[in-house]
Amino acid sequence: MEVDEVVAGVIARAPRAIARAISLVEDGDDALPALSAGVFPHTGTAATVGLTGAPGVGKSTIATALVRTARAAGRRVAVLAIDPTSPYTGGALLGDRVRMQEHATDPDVFIRSMATRGHLGGMALASPEAVRILDAAGFDLVIVETVGVGQAEIDVAAATDTTLVVLAPGLGDAIQMAKAGILEVADLFVVNKADREGAAEVQRELKQMLHLGAARPWDPPVLATAASDGTGIEELWAEIERHHAWLACTGALARDREAAVVHEVRALAAERLASSVAAELTGDEALRAQLRDRELDPYAAVDELIRRLRPG
Amino acid sequence: MEVDEVVAGVIARAPRAIARAISLVEDGDDALPALSAGVFPHTGTAATVGLTGAPGVGKSTIATALVRTARAAGRRVAVLAIDPTSPYTGGALLGDRVRMQEHATDPDVFIRSMATRGHLGGMALASPEAVRILDAAGFDLVIVETVGVGQAEIDVAAATDTTLVVLAPGLGDAIQMAKAGILEVADLFVVNKADREGAAEVQRELKQMLHLGAARPWDPPVLATAASDGTGIEELWAEIERHHAWLACTGALARDREAAVVHEVRALAAERLASSVAAELTGDEALRAQLRDRELDPYAAVDELIRRLRPG
Repeated sequence: MEVDEVVAGVIARAPRAIARAISLVEDGDDALPALSAGVFPHTGTAATVGLTGAPGVGKSTIATALVRTARAAGRRVAVLAIDPTSPYTGGALLGDRVRMQEHATDPDVFIRSMATRGHLGGMALASPEAVRILDAAGFDLVIVETVGVGQAEIDVAAATDTTLVVLAPGLGDAIQMAKAGILEVADLFVVNKADREGAAEVQRELKQMLHLGAARPWDPPVLATAASDGTGIEELWAEIERHHAWLACTGALARDREAAVVHEVRALAAERLASSVAAELTGDEALRAQLRDRELDPYAAVDELIRRLRPG
Repeated sequence: MEVDEVVAGVIARAPRAIARAISLVEDGDDALPALSAGVFPHTGTAATVGLTGAPGVGKSTIATALVRTARAAGRRVAVLAIDPTSPYTGGALLGDRVRMQEHATDPDVFIRSMATRGHLGGMALASPEAVRILDAAGFDLVIVETVGVGQAEIDVAAATDTTLVVLAPGLGDAIQMAKAGILEVADLFVVNKADREGAAEVQRELKQMLHLGAARPWDPPVLATAASDGTGIEELWAEIERHHAWLACTGALARDREAAVVHEVRALAAERLASSVAAELTGDEALRAQLRDRELDPYAAVDELIRRLRPG
């Protein structure tokens, strides 16, 4: 499939073309600029929801439950699970996607795990590009789910319109979340596995933490769910819709999206320039020897490399 | 304190100068290149250990126990806790460092939480620079502890000589770890809270996962600890020493360290160039409007910005 066929297929909402386009993103393919240029004019209508939280809190189960609710509300919905799959472990662990099989025959649902090791900029750059493809393919809602809960994952989730942070009893407390810098990016908190012991404590502790912080224009609600049997999912869905309406009517939606694309352009440029620098450094054994022998420190090496890149 | 005084103080092992130097790194201060140039020739002797794992597994407790063991073995030891403290939560949550107070009066122990939001390159760039300061200050062992367990945290831990991955029963299973790409960076696994229910299962599951992978030159051992009462810490210390000896005698130590500094130079250069690009983009309202109105896609915007940066 040529890239213009892929673009046409994405816009025509053809599942094969959509899958192919995301694979191109995953691989950091040379066709990416053409793909990006092709789909970009068709984007901007999807609402995006980021889903982050520690491993084991039930993010995938919540995503599945949200898909069900969104479908009942007549929305076309896509789930993009950002899976930094390693060469060591391979793709064999993506079996939990099997849970999503109930939607397998629904043409208005698209579920995809995306490994990002092939993309030079990692998940921070692969994720927004993949989201735009799904947006151009006419999905009303795109859910972006991360695996871990580190800085990169928080950044990816925070780049969406609505960021959902999921906690569960026994899986790291609110103080740990605060230390990871996660509280401030959340638009909605979900305490999942609310039927388990300790769930009320997690909610209480979280609310206390939130009250310690400065007041913000949007006060993030703390919800309780037991996603495996659907408890609380309707309320969660209503809060997601309420947050999106709030973003739209305050003008925050347009502002946040512009900030996100500016941030992305900056990161893309950095990645591209870093590749030039790395090629220069790889080709210069003498410079590497100076670094190794501690004759030239990293900052001085950077000065030298940038000088070569940008003469005059 | 001028930067040359700071450098002299670090080399003279003065705690105030060391603390000041790390603050300069934290803030991304303009004096950083001079500081880096000053300390770099004095580095290369410290052994570095990275400590990563999900929130709540007991990383800080293990770090404290290792400090005690290292001191008993006559080593000077520093702990650098990479804390991406947010403006929202402030620094008030670093109270768990209080646990380290037993070493507060020991001049051969240095413990420091480092926020990294001021440093443009985030923890990936702040951490190696801070480690070099501690190395130049004559610490034999530098322990780098992360808060979360995402991609950025894994990268930071993996940039050390010996990477310790900590798990605990009930806090995300080995499959979740594998999905986060953490298995392949580990030199040592520690199942902490080994006195709790489920610890044996975590160990067994982890060993099974490891046997699924391809054979590697170093076979990472799986240890059990209950760090709060010191159980298993002597064995952990012995394994850290054994791993370091293995790195040194196979030549992997020198090779890994060169790769790490090359990687760092690449990232530093990228960050510097990205700042130039961002300044250009910020100053160009027309270009931002084209992005906003979807007339120019992100890749095309990058092309345009790099063209301006690098004429001809």
